[in-house]
Amino acid sequence: MLRIIGIDPGLQRMGWGIIDIIGNNLKHVANNVIRTEPKMALSERLVFLEAELGKIIEHFHPRKAAIEQTFVNKDAVATLKLGQARAMALFAPASRGLMIEEYAPNTVKKTVVGKGHADKEQVQHMLKILLPAVELKNADSADALAIAITAAYHQRETFG
Amino acid sequence: MLRIIGIDPGLQRMGWGIIDIIGNNLKHVANNVIRTEPKMALSERLVFLEAELGKIIEHFHPRKAAIEQTFVNKDAVATLKLGQARAMALFAPASRGLMIEEYAPNTVKKTVVGKGHADKEQVQHMLKILLPAVELKNADSADALAIAITAAYHQRETFG
Repeated sequence: MLRIIGIDPGLQRMGWGIIDIIGNNLKHVANNVIRTEPKMALSERLVFLEAELGKIIEHFHPRKAAIEQTFVNKDAVATLKLGQARAMALFAPASRGLMIEEYAPNTVKKTVVGKGHADKEQVQHMLKILLPAVELKNADSADALAIAITAAYHQRETFG
Repeated sequence: MLRIIGIDPGLQRMGWGIIDIIGNNLKHVANNVIRTEPKMALSERLVFLEAELGKIIEHFHPRKAAIEQTFVNKDAVATLKLGQARAMALFAPASRGLMIEEYAPNTVKKTVVGKGHADKEQVQHMLKILLPAVELKNADSADALAIAITAAYHQRETFG
């Protein structure tokens, strides 16, 4: 059994989703989002995100973390914010000894839906098929589960 | 006495400099740079930066951290990297209970040299005048000391 946490980084909404690989099957464990308020100081938001991710990791004990590679866009301020949030998504699991993998958004979509430019509805539809008992808490945690599934399929190709 | 650490964030070179405010005087304590290798995984570089900053904070016990506001430029990949490094510069002191202040590069130059568009030589010249016993280890730690001095002057204006 391998337990994987997928993380969809964001400063205001950090999505996370945890799955187990048991033989050839995937099993949903949990998914949700960590929210921070824009009125909080940036340093406090980062400390809060790290502490909450830390609690989730210590509660569920995943052995691997898969983090979405950030989409770099033309809005430099947004890119900087995302970079800061993403650092916590990498740091929280890495500092607790988890293996870290990074996947591009297109790789995630291609793995879950079969093509690189699928929309969110398609991704969520496939998540419900791949993880039958799943209840998707929100769009960010759905993305996080899709990232975890991508890591699971990569794992199979590499080791399975 | 108030001890301040200034941090000039960077993924490859994270400059830091520590000063004391003693009455109306500033005293240099230490300055240097933390380096990470591009061949290391991003998550490992972030964990390393945080651990090294943590050691410095636990050794020197500054009560306040001043971090340079990142210059957002047109290179989105560089902006993202800087955002990730900057998150560690904020997280390491904030998670250890230090007060956090952020200063724009122009504010730092204006405080140290008297104008917002000074070059590095002018900043380093003024550092040697403001902190007579200082030995500047490198350009990044000089910038970090300039940030710490900016926080010190702001402190005086605010509290007396």
